[in-house]
Amino acid sequence: MAPSTPYLAIDLERMQANIARVADAATARGVALRPHAKTHKCIEIGRMQLAAGAAGLSVATVGEAEVFAAAGLDDLFIAYPLRVDADRAARLSAMVARGAAISVGADSVDGVARLARAGLAGRVAIRVEVDAGHHRSGCDPADAGDVAAAAATAGFDVEGVFAFPGHAYAPDAREVAALEEAEALTAAAASMWAVGLPPGVVSGGSTPSYDAALGIPSPVTELRPGVSALGDAQQWELGVLAADRIALTCHATVVSARPGRIVVDAGSKALGADRAPWASGFGRLLDHPDARIVQLSEHHAVVELDDAPPLGARVRVVPNHVCSAVNLADDLHAFHAPEDVEPAARWRVAARGRNS
Amino acid sequence: MAPSTPYLAIDLERMQANIARVADAATARGVALRPHAKTHKCIEIGRMQLAAGAAGLSVATVGEAEVFAAAGLDDLFIAYPLRVDADRAARLSAMVARGAAISVGADSVDGVARLARAGLAGRVAIRVEVDAGHHRSGCDPADAGDVAAAAATAGFDVEGVFAFPGHAYAPDAREVAALEEAEALTAAAASMWAVGLPPGVVSGGSTPSYDAALGIPSPVTELRPGVSALGDAQQWELGVLAADRIALTCHATVVSARPGRIVVDAGSKALGADRAPWASGFGRLLDHPDARIVQLSEHHAVVELDDAPPLGARVRVVPNHVCSAVNLADDLHAFHAPEDVEPAARWRVAARGRNS
Repeated sequence: MAPSTPYLAIDLERMQANIARVADAATARGVALRPHAKTHKCIEIGRMQLAAGAAGLSVATVGEAEVFAAAGLDDLFIAYPLRVDADRAARLSAMVARGAAISVGADSVDGVARLARAGLAGRVAIRVEVDAGHHRSGCDPADAGDVAAAAATAGFDVEGVFAFPGHAYAPDAREVAALEEAEALTAAAASMWAVGLPPGVVSGGSTPSYDAALGIPSPVTELRPGVSALGDAQQWELGVLAADRIALTCHATVVSARPGRIVVDAGSKALGADRAPWASGFGRLLDHPDARIVQLSEHHAVVELDDAPPLGARVRVVPNHVCSAVNLADDLHAFHAPEDVEPAARWRVAARGRNS
Repeated sequence: MAPSTPYLAIDLERMQANIARVADAATARGVALRPHAKTHKCIEIGRMQLAAGAAGLSVATVGEAEVFAAAGLDDLFIAYPLRVDADRAARLSAMVARGAAISVGADSVDGVARLARAGLAGRVAIRVEVDAGHHRSGCDPADAGDVAAAAATAGFDVEGVFAFPGHAYAPDAREVAALEEAEALTAAAASMWAVGLPPGVVSGGSTPSYDAALGIPSPVTELRPGVSALGDAQQWELGVLAADRIALTCHATVVSARPGRIVVDAGSKALGADRAPWASGFGRLLDHPDARIVQLSEHHAVVELDDAPPLGARVRVVPNHVCSAVNLADDLHAFHAPEDVEPAARWRVAARGRNS
């Protein structure tokens, strides 16, 4: 039986093509890929990314790492400057004891000292996070050497540096963000050379910027795009990918219809409430490019569009931010063709809600 | 051991006081209470609301109803004009067969016909939804009688009418919304009288409007506030409740601190991304009224404030919209005092993610 709407649906062929496209682009430039699994939180999709050549996976939290490691996907980078408490330190140590290869972020000498006091030296590796212009976390690139030296002195394996150019998520921003990322990572690498710790890994990120990062002179040896496997309305609106590359939608039913305006049964509890200042709505419809969600409640979306589908029709809603939508669902339903009613597979969002 | 941040925390005494306050106000006016359980999705909290005198619970979906009914909280109103498919019809019938008393919304003659074709007449009761100015769902109040008559003819028990004045969620809007709700429900009740079906229940809703609804001439016999049990930053900013009534916060750790600006480890995957156009930020800090979340990522919130707590401090973040935050969490941690480290209880968000 078809699942009741709303539910998240994957277009299998599109997702496979997306995974292959990014893998091929990285291979062509000789850059490793460590896709961010926070986007899909799903063992099955992580396996496909590794099968396509990824060196390992990136995750955001210790909890996400545990889920993937338990399934044997255990070459993991926790791309966050962790402030470990006793609980998280014990969980990290346990993963390593079971054979996982874990690296974590650090962006200060103080943070390194905390990781060392937690007994993690010699267990987890460290990558130094530098701020490439997003101004959220990460040290000044010129300080990367100091953080790296503190880590090495404390007995950590220092793998390299990383940045997240989150300011690429804005109109006409991705080329500049990629350039700033390259500059920051170049300065960070120089800072590490200066203290005798040449970085083995120079890792960049982000779906909006990875294409640009592959096209410019850059010290990047690894990229960590997340959204690229599935796509979302933000990337569609930013021009990062066309609608025919969007592989995840929320199937919903039209519960009210009149000319120019429908209500569908997917709201913020299925789609997420993300709306960037530049977004044209709370989400879009894949098969109606002019449609915009103009009002979003928890279980209703009001959509304005020219050619309104009839009451009872199934529509494919594109969430603004796929990472948020996936994190609301317990399962992803994988389909071979858009017109299929029965999913070919149902995958657990195994790392859903693993925020700590 | 204290849970690792971020996690959702309930202030038990405040929540009990909130539940009692709303119950007392309704009792004083002789109005029944059917709190909306979509806010907390938690059996334990639903039990407390019933113990405080609630006539039953409101829910948003068949899936939420199943969770509460299975725990014996089975006097339920699904406050949504359901468009049932075979799956949902079977699930509704199964609940009723196990003894649950279920009423559902309907806002069109067509919707009533679908419920009848699904074999639900004589099983679930119907309440007619009317639009009180929110313009999302609900029929014109003057048409309530037609929908009610269709339902009665099809063999349904017609309990009455309901409205959701969602337009009360805006600055200075709640008195007007309560008045419009009263007008719409008065017109709807008259329309039902006109077809010989006087409404047994006239149900109004919403945390911003319920206080006003109790203070004006109104046909309301029942109210369905949801957020009032827990509070959130939206209600704080709207002036519906003061900070000292906010009973749910997300405990987070300061992971970066400099004068005037901190970063905490709770992001949109813990707080939700809701931000109304009139909201002053993506969330607030309970103990720092001037603080605003000015930038929100999936696992970071950047907070601007005058008196920044130090690196490593635990802070209490108030989500903008509590319903969204709760729906992201697997558990709620209940504390007797804000300074406690160990929760007194851990409750499952049993209906989390039940969107269909």
